[in-house]
Amino acid sequence: MEISFGLDFDTKHWGRPGRWQAEFGAGGISVLGRTESTGQFLAAAAEIQSSLPYEIYKTEKEIGASYRFKLQGEAVFDRKVSIFADRQGEKREELLLAAEADLQKSPGFSEALVAAKAYWEDFWQRTDVEIEGDPENQQGIRFCIYHLQQTYHGFDPGNNIGAKGLTGEAYSGHAFWDTETYCLPFYLFNNLSAARDLLIFRYRTLPEARKRARELDCEGACYPIATLNGHEACSLWQHASLQLQPSTGVAYGIYHYYRVSKDNEFLKDYGFEMLVEISRFLLSRGQWNREGKFGYYCVMGPDEFQMMVHHNSYTNYLAKRTFLFTLEVRDLLKDNDKYEQIIEKLGIGEDFFRKIKTAAAQMLLLYDPETELFEQHLGYFELPHIDIGSIPVTDFPLYNNWSYDRIYRNDMIKQPDVLMFLFLFASDFPLSVKKANYEFYEPRCIHESSLSPSVHSILAAEIGKKDEALAFFEFATRLDLDDYNRNAEEGLHLTSIAAAWMNIVYGFGGLRSDGACLSLAPQIPAIWKRYAFKINYRGKNIRVEVTKDEVKLSSDDEKPATLLLYGKEIILRDEYRAELRK
Amino acid sequence: MEISFGLDFDTKHWGRPGRWQAEFGAGGISVLGRTESTGQFLAAAAEIQSSLPYEIYKTEKEIGASYRFKLQGEAVFDRKVSIFADRQGEKREELLLAAEADLQKSPGFSEALVAAKAYWEDFWQRTDVEIEGDPENQQGIRFCIYHLQQTYHGFDPGNNIGAKGLTGEAYSGHAFWDTETYCLPFYLFNNLSAARDLLIFRYRTLPEARKRARELDCEGACYPIATLNGHEACSLWQHASLQLQPSTGVAYGIYHYYRVSKDNEFLKDYGFEMLVEISRFLLSRGQWNREGKFGYYCVMGPDEFQMMVHHNSYTNYLAKRTFLFTLEVRDLLKDNDKYEQIIEKLGIGEDFFRKIKTAAAQMLLLYDPETELFEQHLGYFELPHIDIGSIPVTDFPLYNNWSYDRIYRNDMIKQPDVLMFLFLFASDFPLSVKKANYEFYEPRCIHESSLSPSVHSILAAEIGKKDEALAFFEFATRLDLDDYNRNAEEGLHLTSIAAAWMNIVYGFGGLRSDGACLSLAPQIPAIWKRYAFKINYRGKNIRVEVTKDEVKLSSDDEKPATLLLYGKEIILRDEYRAELRK
Repeated sequence: MEISFGLDFDTKHWGRPGRWQAEFGAGGISVLGRTESTGQFLAAAAEIQSSLPYEIYKTEKEIGASYRFKLQGEAVFDRKVSIFADRQGEKREELLLAAEADLQKSPGFSEALVAAKAYWEDFWQRTDVEIEGDPENQQGIRFCIYHLQQTYHGFDPGNNIGAKGLTGEAYSGHAFWDTETYCLPFYLFNNLSAARDLLIFRYRTLPEARKRARELDCEGACYPIATLNGHEACSLWQHASLQLQPSTGVAYGIYHYYRVSKDNEFLKDYGFEMLVEISRFLLSRGQWNREGKFGYYCVMGPDEFQMMVHHNSYTNYLAKRTFLFTLEVRDLLKDNDKYEQIIEKLGIGEDFFRKIKTAAAQMLLLYDPETELFEQHLGYFELPHIDIGSIPVTDFPLYNNWSYDRIYRNDMIKQPDVLMFLFLFASDFPLSVKKANYEFYEPRCIHESSLSPSVHSILAAEIGKKDEALAFFEFATRLDLDDYNRNAEEGLHLTSIAAAWMNIVYGFGGLRSDGACLSLAPQIPAIWKRYAFKINYRGKNIRVEVTKDEVKLSSDDEKPATLLLYGKEIILRDEYRAELRK
Repeated sequence: MEISFGLDFDTKHWGRPGRWQAEFGAGGISVLGRTESTGQFLAAAAEIQSSLPYEIYKTEKEIGASYRFKLQGEAVFDRKVSIFADRQGEKREELLLAAEADLQKSPGFSEALVAAKAYWEDFWQRTDVEIEGDPENQQGIRFCIYHLQQTYHGFDPGNNIGAKGLTGEAYSGHAFWDTETYCLPFYLFNNLSAARDLLIFRYRTLPEARKRARELDCEGACYPIATLNGHEACSLWQHASLQLQPSTGVAYGIYHYYRVSKDNEFLKDYGFEMLVEISRFLLSRGQWNREGKFGYYCVMGPDEFQMMVHHNSYTNYLAKRTFLFTLEVRDLLKDNDKYEQIIEKLGIGEDFFRKIKTAAAQMLLLYDPETELFEQHLGYFELPHIDIGSIPVTDFPLYNNWSYDRIYRNDMIKQPDVLMFLFLFASDFPLSVKKANYEFYEPRCIHESSLSPSVHSILAAEIGKKDEALAFFEFATRLDLDDYNRNAEEGLHLTSIAAAWMNIVYGFGGLRSDGACLSLAPQIPAIWKRYAFKINYRGKNIRVEVTKDEVKLSSDDEKPATLLLYGKEIILRDEYRAELRK
């Protein structure tokens, strides 16, 4: 029998040779790798414990130990691997030593097993979602939660969440603009410091975002559509230049984090600076129309099937809210010692705040109070209508089967756009507005994004369309587990996995966290007997359990928390029960 | 002294190695070259006559004769080179033999000199433009005419006119969509068979245009923005997919050629088939709006600063005219024997003609009878206004100095769009409409195309803005001669050179050739004493001479031609004189 354990830096990317330089350490099994294009270091050291004799083998970029033996009874190998990364590419000397030294400190398998068990037990105790009466979704949501935790748990604020996590090569490891809108909520209620770290990633990459704004002839900071390290990695100019939602998304992330955490320190140390820079960008990118209204020309909203439009409602609304939140934070901080310091560092004066106040007040919103509809963008209602039911199934996905420009010439939409901001700022809009827009836009949406169904499901649940809410939920938790899209080999759909969690907690649980006060409005899908989820809110662990008749909120501590339940203010100490609203 | 004469296939393209394979002929100095990517053949054979001894030299892709001698008195070398091309890449064997054989038939230098002199004397006699009192423009326009003739004179209908002619490597030899709108007129009045050959180039490339239409999920034929051989060579999707003017431009070329030539045979053999295929494309690419009007969504008109717009007036108007002309030609041909044959070959029926008739009748034209303005596209009038005078000179050219997407967010235009169709279909629009639109659009145009000033000059002349007409003419004839754009090393601006000819003949001469009858309305720039140009119209050579007081039309034959002069019908036999209208 022959067994080899090695460190292999000759990895492939999409079948092509990987771009690593590798040099072996002086003693033992260790490699210092360097990425050819970005010059980052990755050091790996391994130790194998076994009583069997071995030989060290080397190829150009691989080193390991090879065991050749006759198996008698059992053979035990205890392997430890230590990996250290240096993104700045500055620690060439120390990095390999650190990895080697770390090996010595690390426990062996049995000890690690005990620690891992305890870690996961604690994790599931705090984070599990239980569903009774639906084993597929029970398994599915646990699969989702497990992979969210595996991908990101806030260990290092230099990381973000890749679209495929660490599970596949599609999208080249890039994190997308929807981290803040789709992934953040899970962490806000399960691991607040990880949520904070995600935002600190954006703070750390402010210099790149500032550079990008300059490239676009704008001021402030413009965040990337796709990125590894803050640098805009999207090579399609129309996406990289016309989509402002990465920037408004970061602002929304700060807003959302603050609404949940009330973390003033974060605002002072990081948030305010980002908000000012994003607002600067938005102020310089916006334009005034002839009637003195402010807004955005030549943009692409979240619906990527409408490419270069004016006054996209999502963009205008998010910009308005970004301006208003920047002003809110400024009022909050302005008596703080650090305020003047930040203002001076950024080189802005009162004038700037007056300008964003005016721009917010004069933001053009294409809202018709009679129909209660937001028009997705100027002229959207006049676009030729296409009955999406009439498109042959074989035409999907349209990106593969339609001429690229053809996608843009009608009122079909790819994923929620108006509905997206009605969800993000749910507390701002009455039910009737959500209903009117859902009924108008849903039939025009082809959901050519794995993120689309969950947002529709959440809104459908809110406006009482229970069957639709369940129908849109159907594929949420098991997209990758059952490989619905036949592309699981490319890696998991991480953002969609995060959306599955939202689909249960925000959709059926009716959680809303964008307002001044956390609010819940649980309902239960007909096919479920009972479900429960856990959230941590301002340090208090809250378990929400929903049966066919009852909502039970419980906590392991007595500290009072004020919540809205079905719109009514309640104070939760250790337990609160209410009838399920049907 | 050492002199070498060789055939060198080791050419560079933009400093990079050229992509030729080369093999030498069996005897003498000859090479069979083959382009690596497109597989076309080019055979060259050379013969040098001299009494001096020589040696044949060869490198990998070059062959020649090298003479080393002591110069006593004079040394005479008579070199002949013969070049044969085979675009289809099928005639490998014969091509080199043909080039070698051709050498034997060719005359030597003295004989060739006599023939060339006679050729150019005849050419200038038929084609010269004389300007008295403005030696710079006199030299300039002759430079233009000479290079038009050098670049293209209709020898082979497999050729078109490259944007840089044969003089430079920029645009890689590609011909652009504006051949029909800018270059064709020169040939229509100086070399009608060359004009016909230009259109036959489009007929020969119909199969590629059909393929391109399929790629765009459309029917019929879509002509390329840029091409060598009919294949779309433009690699920017937004230009290649959204600009319909190559196709409507070909239809306009056929229309224009027919108005001047009355060549029914051409329509029957080539024109009708192209018109039907273009109309099919336009019918399938267009859409109906909710009010039952037809037009184009997501297009880019000639003004490339408005990228993805709806109901661009140029596009809609040209499509309407294409449909109407297709119907006109169909009425003209429908009793012809060949008509049924063509219809059957194309697989269309009466239904198709009904459809394009309806589409033409219902074409949406954004025209306001009150202001007499055409809106460049839906919503153009609502775009933020930019005072182009306020843009710092150092920002130009904007493509180099502005973020790409920034160019699109205002009402600034790059080159004539509405004004372009008012020029192409000049006979359709009253002076007041031209005046209103010129006054509106000219101040918004930054002329970031060398073609823009000439069209503005022509319209300015027509509406009586003589100073502006002269100002826009200023750089037309000497753009390359004086290297205004500091890029003459990239090659000549061939289309601009053609526009310079139009600027004199259509601008100051007031020629209009799009109507049922040729029309003239000469004026004379204040700085000129006298000018004259020649046109051949339906076989009759006409010389137009304009002095400060008089217009003199003369011809070398008595055959009567009906013309409009200042809007009045006249019959020209050998001479006609009229007072200059001031």
